[in-house]
Amino acid sequence: MRQPVDLPKAYRLLNHGPTVLVSAQHDGRQNVMAAAWAMPLDFEPPKVAVVLDKATYTRELVEASNHFALSVPCQAQARIVNAVGTHSGRDQDKFAAYGLHTLDEPAAHSPLVSGCVAWLDCERLPQPEQEGRFDLFLGQVTGAWALSRVFSSGRWHFEGHDHLRTLHHIAGGQFFAIGQPVDGSK
Amino acid sequence: MRQPVDLPKAYRLLNHGPTVLVSAQHDGRQNVMAAAWAMPLDFEPPKVAVVLDKATYTRELVEASNHFALSVPCQAQARIVNAVGTHSGRDQDKFAAYGLHTLDEPAAHSPLVSGCVAWLDCERLPQPEQEGRFDLFLGQVTGAWALSRVFSSGRWHFEGHDHLRTLHHIAGGQFFAIGQPVDGSK
Repeated sequence: MRQPVDLPKAYRLLNHGPTVLVSAQHDGRQNVMAAAWAMPLDFEPPKVAVVLDKATYTRELVEASNHFALSVPCQAQARIVNAVGTHSGRDQDKFAAYGLHTLDEPAAHSPLVSGCVAWLDCERLPQPEQEGRFDLFLGQVTGAWALSRVFSSGRWHFEGHDHLRTLHHIAGGQFFAIGQPVDGSK
Repeated sequence: MRQPVDLPKAYRLLNHGPTVLVSAQHDGRQNVMAAAWAMPLDFEPPKVAVVLDKATYTRELVEASNHFALSVPCQAQARIVNAVGTHSGRDQDKFAAYGLHTLDEPAAHSPLVSGCVAWLDCERLPQPEQEGRFDLFLGQVTGAWALSRVFSSGRWHFEGHDHLRTLHHIAGGQFFAIGQPVDGSK
């Protein structure tokens, strides 16, 4: 079941470095792309940073709408993540082409991708110079949700749910799934 | 054995989202801190982005020296990563306090931390406004190395070396080790 995540803990959805799907919509058009280059930027209000190449259609929609969402995909979606990361949505609706659905989440400004394990809805913090020079986009998180089966009380717990483990892209469609807990506090 | 990594493939050392150690030195002083908020920013020349809080001593040294290094620690170092991430180096030399050694790598401008599995030596790309407003630092990678036992020919391969798996911080000294390969290309 999808549950809201307290905004001051939203950074924990990205803190361990998963590859994400970036989505946006504007004026009846929507698109989704994969991005390994995304990270938290602040705790409260939570902010994120993500790299969006100039060639991407998603970037056009982010610039037009001033909103984007980050959906955190899982092991079961590896082929889809690779596919949406290697094809452009200029010529076809990638949601339709890859059988992707969006969640019915009225509070979200951008499409949240079904089948993922966490979602961050973000408002762009326009930085024209850095966007132009480094393709670096910043956003403030305005809503966050996670699948309670693998994230609750601010913690990920993937035991017994290997297919829901987050994906961490290496290159060329090769990923790692996130692995075992390691306690560094003792 | 430590081997140089071709700079156009240096992004692969960070692409899967590991927590890193950020280190810098200036005028005989050095420091190291942990950072989960780091990511690649470009392929060639390779660039990185990392968040350095205003309170950190490492940030002072980065601003003074215009250089920093990212070392990628491993499972065997979880306690040290947590320790250097929760104590400040203003009062004590963290390298001495935690028994950390630096590599003898003449090409590096900043200290590279022994026992890690990969290293990126970076030159700061000063962005005073973004550094001040978002604590966001950018750097160009000028040298990269990795432990050939777990990274060679541009690929990570951790099989049989669990203690060398990269660490992915969740919160409060709790990490995940990176897990199993997942092929999304077929």
